[in-house]
Amino acid sequence: MPTLCRPVVAVPEYVITLDDTLDLARRLHGRHEQLPLVLRLIRNTHVAKRHLVQPIEDTLRHPGFEARNAVYVREAKARVPEVVERALAHANLTPDRVDAIVFVSCTGFTMPSLIPWMINELGFRSDTRQLPIAQMGCAAGGAAINRAHDFCLAYPGAHVLIVACEFCSLCYQPTDLDVGNLLSNGLFGDAVAAAVVRGDASVGVRLSANGSRLIRDTEDWISYAVKSTGFHFRLDRRVPGTMEQLAPELLSVAADFGWNASALDFYIVHAGGPRILDDLSHFLGVAPTMFRYSRATLTEYGNIASAVVLDGLRRLFDAGDTPHDACGLIAGFGPGITAEITLGTWGSHAAQPERKPTHFHNKEALT
Amino acid sequence: MPTLCRPVVAVPEYVITLDDTLDLARRLHGRHEQLPLVLRLIRNTHVAKRHLVQPIEDTLRHPGFEARNAVYVREAKARVPEVVERALAHANLTPDRVDAIVFVSCTGFTMPSLIPWMINELGFRSDTRQLPIAQMGCAAGGAAINRAHDFCLAYPGAHVLIVACEFCSLCYQPTDLDVGNLLSNGLFGDAVAAAVVRGDASVGVRLSANGSRLIRDTEDWISYAVKSTGFHFRLDRRVPGTMEQLAPELLSVAADFGWNASALDFYIVHAGGPRILDDLSHFLGVAPTMFRYSRATLTEYGNIASAVVLDGLRRLFDAGDTPHDACGLIAGFGPGITAEITLGTWGSHAAQPERKPTHFHNKEALT
Repeated sequence: MPTLCRPVVAVPEYVITLDDTLDLARRLHGRHEQLPLVLRLIRNTHVAKRHLVQPIEDTLRHPGFEARNAVYVREAKARVPEVVERALAHANLTPDRVDAIVFVSCTGFTMPSLIPWMINELGFRSDTRQLPIAQMGCAAGGAAINRAHDFCLAYPGAHVLIVACEFCSLCYQPTDLDVGNLLSNGLFGDAVAAAVVRGDASVGVRLSANGSRLIRDTEDWISYAVKSTGFHFRLDRRVPGTMEQLAPELLSVAADFGWNASALDFYIVHAGGPRILDDLSHFLGVAPTMFRYSRATLTEYGNIASAVVLDGLRRLFDAGDTPHDACGLIAGFGPGITAEITLGTWGSHAAQPERKPTHFHNKEALT
Repeated sequence: MPTLCRPVVAVPEYVITLDDTLDLARRLHGRHEQLPLVLRLIRNTHVAKRHLVQPIEDTLRHPGFEARNAVYVREAKARVPEVVERALAHANLTPDRVDAIVFVSCTGFTMPSLIPWMINELGFRSDTRQLPIAQMGCAAGGAAINRAHDFCLAYPGAHVLIVACEFCSLCYQPTDLDVGNLLSNGLFGDAVAAAVVRGDASVGVRLSANGSRLIRDTEDWISYAVKSTGFHFRLDRRVPGTMEQLAPELLSVAADFGWNASALDFYIVHAGGPRILDDLSHFLGVAPTMFRYSRATLTEYGNIASAVVLDGLRRLFDAGDTPHDACGLIAGFGPGITAEITLGTWGSHAAQPERKPTHFHNKEALT
């Protein structure tokens, strides 16, 4: 059974705290009619700090789409190799053992994707399957896991590398002044993450089943307006309330597999904002503490888009208290509105060939 | 065995002939130092005509990235439904039977992709898997087939819809004046295409195996420069010569499956330009006529990016002379430089329960 191994997440060195964010909002938008609302919304995110690829002064300056995208490429090339190398080490693989790379990123755009660069620079085979996804936003973390899972089902024993590269600060648009945008400016953070889906039973989340669900007629609720200034994030005010519609979908995907999504042992979900976690807790009937890893990501890093689920999962690994065979759910939420849902069980040891008998045989052979 | 069913291709109503293109080049670039070379290169493409989503006057005007991309969305929404409906009919499927949609397009950008819109508007299930690919350029036609194939391997019996939506004319950049760009302005055309990969043996190409190959250290040879004016196509002058490196890769993918890529019964390859077909013929040791379907696409429609392989395949269906069990190869070439290679056999009938015996039984039952 394919296993999602220990993820690696790296956040950049430039830090902006909640107080910094609130000060900035006051300084930049002192005359904005809805400033009090914006400040309250930002405070309610409980995002204590975020990490950015550039100092805040550079982040606030818009140098044009071309220069912005060049920063995206420069920072990706500087930051992706380390997380990839460490994720491979966690999976006990060398690059030449990887059969496919899923690269998800919605905060910059390149053609080709960065996968050919990775293959050329990081030692992957030239026959590595390439799967770049730029258009699934925050849902892409879940989509990456699910497409990697599918690949392992198609080719048993294959190994897939997942990379999520999100520099949300490079989508900051100083001219976007509606409440949703000002809130977003206080919510999103930057991060790169990587994880391997090994084609065999190993330590981590053994992938059992996956599903994708779209909430109908919400395709405009989370979207980019594509302009000469780059990607402009559009967030409908109804988005924070969508867990009422998505919770039944999580239950349905789990039920299809014979599980009860209200009674699982662990949950790693996209922490788009605090209400998502509160509502999910409410509508699934699950204690808020069950979302502690997602909440910790939101508090410490902000919404890091497709990297959230990988960071939540990293925290589950770090906690180290998940019992073998515990049942859990991973879910990415994003534009569509789409939920990418993964079901799996915790494996606390690799399913290596049993040692004892082998040892026995060897001993017999030696005697 | 999954089957790639009969594709549907639609080209827009505005036509530009080779003579129109040459006249335009003379008119717009009369003082360009290398105009004679450009005219010769355009003539050598043997692209007799191309189809565009707008009249040529509108195509030549750059209204800004935002307005361009809005045209992309408008035209996609106007033109995709019909090819999808017809492709589903060819595969004898209703939309609710489709389990995944692969949407490939590199000539406009939306977030989310157009898949949620398709699900909402065209009757697909809300649990349809979404796989949008924007970053593989002309190789994406092959990639779409291969990822659909993989999905059917992961979920036997699943059906996957492929859509390729390419409006290359919306990437025309009037300020790009190097020879490669001026040639491209005479080479690329617009088209939308769709095809279904059915999860069972049906009429069409029964998918046997697939592979992806990257030519190392060529990631900058075909690329987009991302600017405030949109996507600027960059074509290295070494690209037309890459078949010398890719032909051995085709041979290698086929050899891995026990086939000889120099001795197959049909070939559907990306017709990026005339030299690709000539060189492939030379380096594979295959008669030029074996590439007649790809050549016809190039002549009649120009390079329609990821839609080329689907159009070539449509022509193979139309010819109707492929014997059952004939062995063939489909290959998309694009940025990376990446080749997405598919091996399959022609199935001339659906592997339905045999009709005769059924008829017999019915007759017996009636008597």
